[in-house]
Amino acid sequence: MPVTTIEWIDDHIRLIDQTRLPTELVYLDIDDLPRLAEAIQSLRVRGAPALGIAAAFGLLLIAHRFRGEDAAELLRHLRNAADLLRRTRPTAVNLGWALDQMLQVAEQHIQQPVAAIRRALHDKAMTLFESDRQVCRQIGEHGAGLIPDGAQIVTHCNTGALATVDWGTALGAIFTAHAQGKKLHVWVDETRPLLQGARLTMWELMHEGIDATLICDNTAAFVMQQRKIDLCIVGADRIATNGDTANKIGTYHLAVAAKHHGIPFYVAAPISTIDFTLDRGEQIPIEKRAAEEVTHGFGRQTAPEGASVYSPAFDITPNELITAIITEVGVLYPPFREAIPQLAKNT
Amino acid sequence: MPVTTIEWIDDHIRLIDQTRLPTELVYLDIDDLPRLAEAIQSLRVRGAPALGIAAAFGLLLIAHRFRGEDAAELLRHLRNAADLLRRTRPTAVNLGWALDQMLQVAEQHIQQPVAAIRRALHDKAMTLFESDRQVCRQIGEHGAGLIPDGAQIVTHCNTGALATVDWGTALGAIFTAHAQGKKLHVWVDETRPLLQGARLTMWELMHEGIDATLICDNTAAFVMQQRKIDLCIVGADRIATNGDTANKIGTYHLAVAAKHHGIPFYVAAPISTIDFTLDRGEQIPIEKRAAEEVTHGFGRQTAPEGASVYSPAFDITPNELITAIITEVGVLYPPFREAIPQLAKNT
Repeated sequence: MPVTTIEWIDDHIRLIDQTRLPTELVYLDIDDLPRLAEAIQSLRVRGAPALGIAAAFGLLLIAHRFRGEDAAELLRHLRNAADLLRRTRPTAVNLGWALDQMLQVAEQHIQQPVAAIRRALHDKAMTLFESDRQVCRQIGEHGAGLIPDGAQIVTHCNTGALATVDWGTALGAIFTAHAQGKKLHVWVDETRPLLQGARLTMWELMHEGIDATLICDNTAAFVMQQRKIDLCIVGADRIATNGDTANKIGTYHLAVAAKHHGIPFYVAAPISTIDFTLDRGEQIPIEKRAAEEVTHGFGRQTAPEGASVYSPAFDITPNELITAIITEVGVLYPPFREAIPQLAKNT
Repeated sequence: MPVTTIEWIDDHIRLIDQTRLPTELVYLDIDDLPRLAEAIQSLRVRGAPALGIAAAFGLLLIAHRFRGEDAAELLRHLRNAADLLRRTRPTAVNLGWALDQMLQVAEQHIQQPVAAIRRALHDKAMTLFESDRQVCRQIGEHGAGLIPDGAQIVTHCNTGALATVDWGTALGAIFTAHAQGKKLHVWVDETRPLLQGARLTMWELMHEGIDATLICDNTAAFVMQQRKIDLCIVGADRIATNGDTANKIGTYHLAVAAKHHGIPFYVAAPISTIDFTLDRGEQIPIEKRAAEEVTHGFGRQTAPEGASVYSPAFDITPNELITAIITEVGVLYPPFREAIPQLAKNT
């Protein structure tokens, strides 16, 4: 069983504080919006699919705490909360996607009593939660089909149980291949600045007994040069309709190295990650993070006082560097500009 | 004036403890070999040219502490010390090169009294020191010629005053271009795991008032994609006669990204960095560093207990990714397999 990153318990959210991993497994019980927003901004909960669930639960929290009887007033509260949550992390599209789904439910029930709206929101949030679980399983199955027995794989950031509500996306494919009895070795990019690879992915892989080796992000190309990597697999925070993919900073660097060495580069993500309103990657807003995450990473000051820092949370990998995109409905191959709109028609 | 990384004072070595930078500028006075070996292994002193000087000073220390009158016995002590120092850092060739120069002087004076050998070693060490200073200035001049006014430059690790006894190699070229009045902007790879870029290069550039921005190593390719980098310049720890270059881990990844974006990639290094006994890069021994430098890098444990880690100190950039090699006698262009042996004939 994967760990449960985030869940709804009675009237509040329980989530793992991922900033405390790998040394401590601490659960946070969150029952108000400011604390949830802080948890999202501080990356206590992160990963595009998990952020979608966190956002849905955030609106459910508003509905639960609402004490009035005026449905229109509740809707105003929900919209304000959605605005606030939407601003916490601008790149991950799943967050906004889940908020829109929840608001739509509230709007559809606006003529009904507050209690009925609350129930409808609860049902919708649980549906999203269950659906994310299904989606993970399907991505895992499709992804595992691309991973041969004996494969050496490199991955970046964390796309496992901690980033979703089940086994994960890119890491889900690895877990599924492992469960199928394939022997694997995973090279894990530590993923500066916040070390989600070192702290979270290593923790998940070691927990599952999968052979894994931690490397600094600048080392993957050298491992490829030694012919010790057969494929790359990463997640996504937002995908444009031409296949350009926003994902954790360093993904593009890795994709360029994979291209140079002729190594397949796979993106695994639910369809909810695709932004059908965007033609291409450069339209995706890129969140910039605080300098301190680089200069004061983990306790000690490691750059001079006042150092200027450029720390984008994500980068854009252009479609021509992506071998395939693994979704819950199957594996998409180039040209993505055709495969992705086709998907919109079929789903 | 550049800071003085390492110098000989009366009867001992004084060096900056670079592990304390950028928050503290601490000088260490070292008067025995075990402490010097520890300082080299712990990277309190580092940088290929500075390591050559440290090694030469290490043998001078032996000569100064030797209390006997038997020249042959002194030579035995010197050789033992050289063996120990040679093992501290296996990749940087300058270290062994300087030791060989010093031992040769002792051997040439073996018929003379111990005091005369001591004086000869002192003179040789000072000559190496002065020569390194000259070499830095010349590399700086040749390198600056490749840096246009207004250039945006990316560099990796530290190749400045802290890595040499003067302005440095790759960073020396940047300092020289700046002194010529060129307006520059330098993107500084933080250089995991030990953050020589963040701690040392940022410190040196800010000290000189050069516009600099710190980035994580995984970010350089994304900055290149945004067309904000005109050229790369790095140092070297050992260069084979075909031009393949061992340098700080991450150099190869950067060179691959530069190639992908059509950006010139320069290596700046003294001729003493060239290992004329090696045909190609894969023959260069690559030092592996302790897992803890990755998993406990910032004071806090950032990977699970027992995590397997691959942490090579260096990687090999093949000659086809290198635009030119900047030396004290001029700029070498491909084919390096011809230019480098030619150099051996002319110098």
